[in-house]
Amino acid sequence: MNITLAENYGFCFGVKRAIKIAEENQNSKTYGALIHNTQEIDRLKKDYNVGLTNTLSDFKTGETAVVRTHGIPKNELKELKHRDVNVINATCPYVTKPQHICEDMSGEGYDIVIFGDEKHPEIKGVKSYAEGNVYTVLHVSELEELDLKEKVAVVAQTTRKIEEFLEIANYLIARHKEVRVFNTICNATFENQTAVKALSKKSDVMVIIGGKNSSNTKQLHAISSDECPDSYHIESPKEVKKEWFDNKHNCGISAGASTPDWIIKEVIEKIEEITA
Amino acid sequence: MNITLAENYGFCFGVKRAIKIAEENQNSKTYGALIHNTQEIDRLKKDYNVGLTNTLSDFKTGETAVVRTHGIPKNELKELKHRDVNVINATCPYVTKPQHICEDMSGEGYDIVIFGDEKHPEIKGVKSYAEGNVYTVLHVSELEELDLKEKVAVVAQTTRKIEEFLEIANYLIARHKEVRVFNTICNATFENQTAVKALSKKSDVMVIIGGKNSSNTKQLHAISSDECPDSYHIESPKEVKKEWFDNKHNCGISAGASTPDWIIKEVIEKIEEITA
Repeated sequence: MNITLAENYGFCFGVKRAIKIAEENQNSKTYGALIHNTQEIDRLKKDYNVGLTNTLSDFKTGETAVVRTHGIPKNELKELKHRDVNVINATCPYVTKPQHICEDMSGEGYDIVIFGDEKHPEIKGVKSYAEGNVYTVLHVSELEELDLKEKVAVVAQTTRKIEEFLEIANYLIARHKEVRVFNTICNATFENQTAVKALSKKSDVMVIIGGKNSSNTKQLHAISSDECPDSYHIESPKEVKKEWFDNKHNCGISAGASTPDWIIKEVIEKIEEITA
Repeated sequence: MNITLAENYGFCFGVKRAIKIAEENQNSKTYGALIHNTQEIDRLKKDYNVGLTNTLSDFKTGETAVVRTHGIPKNELKELKHRDVNVINATCPYVTKPQHICEDMSGEGYDIVIFGDEKHPEIKGVKSYAEGNVYTVLHVSELEELDLKEKVAVVAQTTRKIEEFLEIANYLIARHKEVRVFNTICNATFENQTAVKALSKKSDVMVIIGGKNSSNTKQLHAISSDECPDSYHIESPKEVKKEWFDNKHNCGISAGASTPDWIIKEVIEKIEEITA
C-alpha cells in the first residue's frame, strides 16, 4: 500500500511551532492554553512537565512562561518581563505580524481596522498594540458607523475568506485618501482543503483523521468524498478496517486542524500493519 | 426667469486654478498648452500676453515659465530651475499629488502601479517622480505580466470609475503582503454629472453649453434630458431661442469641461435679456 500524506494537513504551522517551543522548555508553564487541544496539553504535561495557568501572578521571578499561540495583550507581556519572568513567546507568527502592524500604523497616525471576530482571543492581543483608534469588524455594515480618519490601515486576523476582506478594503478605498492594506489572512484551513482535494484525486482510498464533531475535519471529508468515494472519517486507529484497502493501491491521509501528529502516526502504522 | 447654475459645471477646479495663475502672470509663456481649449489660450494671449511654447530651450534666464495643468517630467522642471527660469507651477493639484506619492513610495521601497492611460501627458510627468519600478495599467490583465515586489503602492491618475480602480487594488491585495492604495481619482467629470442630474430634477428647462462634438457635454445633455425633457445643447449664445422659455419658470445651466466661464456668462445674459 502506498500511503501518502496530504501536502498540508492537521496542525497548522503556528500550532506545530508552539508545541515544539513547549517541548524545548521542560518544567515551564504556559500562560493560557497553548493551543485548542486538551489531549496535546495533557501530553505536554505528562512528557515535558509543561504546566498551565490562567493567572499572571502565578509566574515568579526566574520562572519560564510560555506565551500561547493566540498571543496576549501588550501590557501583560510587559508585566511578565517587568517581573523578570523568562518569557518564551510561542505566539503564532501570523498573530505577531498583525500585532506589529497595529503598533507601527498607529505610531504613523493611521486609524486601524482589524478584520476579525471581536470574541476571539487573538484580537484582544492584536488590538492592545494600537495606541490610537482601532476597530474590529467582520462586515462592511459595521464600518458605516465609524468616523475614521483620511488615512486608514486595514489588517486581517482571521482564517476567513479573502473575498470578505476585499469588501472591507473596497469600502474604505472608495471613501479614504489612503488605505494601507495588509493581507495577513491565515490560509491554514484553506491550505488543508486545497491539499486534500489534490490528494483525493490521485488516491483510491482516503482516511481523514479528526474529531467526529470537528467541523473542519467534516469539511475535509466532504471534499475528499467528492473526488474519492472511498473516503473514511475516523477519530482513532481503532476504527481502521482491513476491508477498506482490499484491491486498493494508493491511500491518502489528511487530518483536521486539532489532530496531533502522533495520532496521525498511529493511524499510518495501523494501516501499514493490516495491509502488510 | 430663475436661472440656476449647476453646483459643479464647466472647467474643473484644476483648470480654473491654472487660468487664474496664467492671468496673474502677464507677459509669461506656458510650457505646453496650459489646458485643452484653444479659445481660452487665444484669450490669455490677447488679454494677458501669455504666450505658448513647446520648446524648453525657448525659456531664458529671468523669464517666467508657467507649467501646464498636466504637469511635466521632473527632469524638465529641474532643467528650468537650473537655468534660473522663474517657474510658476500651474500643475493641477490632482496631478501633483500622485507625483509626490510616486516620489515618496519609491523612496520607501515600494513598487508602484499607476492606474491610468500611458498615452496621457499627465502620466509621463507622474511616472518621472518614481526612482524604482513603476508601471502604468488600465486593466487587471496587464498586472498578470508584472513581477512586483511584496510591497506595492497603487495610485490613480485618471477620471475613470472607482470600480475599475478597485479591481486593480483587489488583484494586488490578494497577492501581496502590503498594498498601499491612494485614491487620487479625479472626480471632476463625475461631479458635473451628479450636479446636472440634481439640477435637472428641479428645472423645467435646461441649457447645456459646450462643443457639439464634446463627448462629456453630450453626456451631460443626455443625463439632463432624462429628468427634464426640455434640455438644449448649445455652443454659443446665438443659438438660444425665446420660445424655449415660454411658460417656464426655472432654467438650469450646466457646461462641459472645456467651456470657459465667459461663454457661460454670455449665455446667461442672453437668456435674461430675452425673458425680461
